[in-house]
Amino acid sequence: MYRAYNFSAGPSVLPDEVLEEIKNELFDFNNTGMSVMEISHRSKQCIALFNETEELLKKSLNIPQGYSVLFMQGGARQQFTTVPLNLLTENKKADFIHTGSWTKYAIKEAKKLGQANLLFNGEECKFKSIPDLKKIKVSDDADYIYICTNNTIEGTTIKPGNLPQANIPLIADMSSNILGEEYDMSKFSLIFAGAQKNLGIAGVAVVIIKNELIEKSPDNIPETLNYKTMKDSESMLNTPPVFSVYVLNKMLKWAERMGGIKQIEKINKQKAAMLYDYIDNSKLYNNDIEPSCRSIMNVIFSLPSEEENKAFDKYATEKGFMFLKGHRSVGGMRASIYNAASLKQVEALVELMKEYELNR
Amino acid sequence: MYRAYNFSAGPSVLPDEVLEEIKNELFDFNNTGMSVMEISHRSKQCIALFNETEELLKKSLNIPQGYSVLFMQGGARQQFTTVPLNLLTENKKADFIHTGSWTKYAIKEAKKLGQANLLFNGEECKFKSIPDLKKIKVSDDADYIYICTNNTIEGTTIKPGNLPQANIPLIADMSSNILGEEYDMSKFSLIFAGAQKNLGIAGVAVVIIKNELIEKSPDNIPETLNYKTMKDSESMLNTPPVFSVYVLNKMLKWAERMGGIKQIEKINKQKAAMLYDYIDNSKLYNNDIEPSCRSIMNVIFSLPSEEENKAFDKYATEKGFMFLKGHRSVGGMRASIYNAASLKQVEALVELMKEYELNR
Repeated sequence: MYRAYNFSAGPSVLPDEVLEEIKNELFDFNNTGMSVMEISHRSKQCIALFNETEELLKKSLNIPQGYSVLFMQGGARQQFTTVPLNLLTENKKADFIHTGSWTKYAIKEAKKLGQANLLFNGEECKFKSIPDLKKIKVSDDADYIYICTNNTIEGTTIKPGNLPQANIPLIADMSSNILGEEYDMSKFSLIFAGAQKNLGIAGVAVVIIKNELIEKSPDNIPETLNYKTMKDSESMLNTPPVFSVYVLNKMLKWAERMGGIKQIEKINKQKAAMLYDYIDNSKLYNNDIEPSCRSIMNVIFSLPSEEENKAFDKYATEKGFMFLKGHRSVGGMRASIYNAASLKQVEALVELMKEYELNR
Repeated sequence: MYRAYNFSAGPSVLPDEVLEEIKNELFDFNNTGMSVMEISHRSKQCIALFNETEELLKKSLNIPQGYSVLFMQGGARQQFTTVPLNLLTENKKADFIHTGSWTKYAIKEAKKLGQANLLFNGEECKFKSIPDLKKIKVSDDADYIYICTNNTIEGTTIKPGNLPQANIPLIADMSSNILGEEYDMSKFSLIFAGAQKNLGIAGVAVVIIKNELIEKSPDNIPETLNYKTMKDSESMLNTPPVFSVYVLNKMLKWAERMGGIKQIEKINKQKAAMLYDYIDNSKLYNNDIEPSCRSIMNVIFSLPSEEENKAFDKYATEKGFMFLKGHRSVGGMRASIYNAASLKQVEALVELMKEYELNR
């Protein structure tokens, strides 16, 4: 069976093992005689699936006591609204570390509801570096401070050792590196992530929230965007995206079989180092991100002109290396190498890049 | 292969043919060497899938010119909020025909943003009947009038011939009978439906909206809930629930092969008549809904006591007739017989009910 080398930034490649399990169970989930797509969300089978998925997520990310897991719809993007609706409510001011497109959109949504205070504005360095955030002065009177741990478009990361020191809640969009590198979860009050990168497929966003924060949700906001309502209904206020949660469950079990987050991070670092090393030593490809904040999930690179980027993309696509084109807002190339992109897949890409550099 | 008889109110049974197609294509969507779950939503394959699905939906429902189709997240439930956020904006008053639990929740959300004016309050008849809506006086100064065409919990329907006559936009929650019986689409300004009943699986809600209404969306509402933003981005503001749209596409093609909406409605009426006839002539089972508004999608019935309902449900479950228990808010029994529930499946249920009545 032909399988492309898939470098999509999301939705992205899934492990063959996970697809195989989904295929085998497609007509019959847990001996019910029904597909997982067909079961009532109020059934004991579905409730057990959700509970198990919550426990797997807590275990895989080492989430301490006192946090809840919510499965929500609308993607991480809807959280850009949901976070301020629930939490930008006391002083109506939030601090932001502005590191790229995703924080830009989050800031835009927050501004509809309060004040967005930029502690760092990455636009000034074209998002090519991120400062030492441990030294940054966080507001005392903000309702929270907001970061995006990995910037898929810009190819940068706020590393686990570079979190701001804050007395106010730290909130993170972790969509593109959750379960890809290990953060100390106790530093965060709220984390959210769309599942379609490291955690499975589109359609569900995971929200991990400190219980004390849940109590702050106002009554008058839309019910499907209310953390307290979602918590009280155990993520089943209305019909949840059952199939997406089912795939998340499979992905978490796969991650466990792979050795868990520490082992996955180790391999992810190997994969990224292989690419960056080759790029840095190449005369054709270039990455101009400050090395201390280079992403191990999204490796961006470019050839000397947009024409040459295009030609390389065409060559790669013809050889079955898919979705290497950079985001339309920045151009260039991008290899998204989330957990399910194997070492072998990245090796194959380096070989392709070498071959292209030699023969063009 | 064992397949249960699935009467779930949603998520609900899918046709074997559709599951078979999904299974066969699981590793390879349209010769891409990738699963449909793995492809970028910005890829030409995904955009083609969305465009085709939109066209199929327009064709299958006979939607006239001048309407747009949006694929949104959060289920029909999130539309309870989304509709007033976008449209309860001029006179901040909306008319409601209150026919059950789903309109109750829709009214609650609308009240957070304006005035909800009940033209009919079904609570007074315990939702057991729906009046002649053609004769009801609709407000001239309301921003819209809102109905739910089929009430899954109460087992009632606002029939295609019983729509209110209004000079203001008519908005309908059609989640549980869309594509199950034919309405004149030109009467509506906006229709929405969660897909997990007649249209596939949970995770996507379909919104069919008159283009002139789209222009009314205010700028300051959450972007993922903004009809104009969703239209401008062709339902891809952010990563859409690709797999749910893919299943919707398969379901629409299946419905076409079944002969389209007219033929489907004919079979649905046969299925429902078979059940109601048996119930009405039975000494054990009862349905006390005013016959003119009985639902052909959700047939509710009850035995003489909750104990007997329980015993019947246990008996049915053991024989592989699943999810016949009525909604927890009303008790009793309920057979949801959406498009994918075959005539054979309903015949089997009638046989089971007879057998139980004879032998208990």
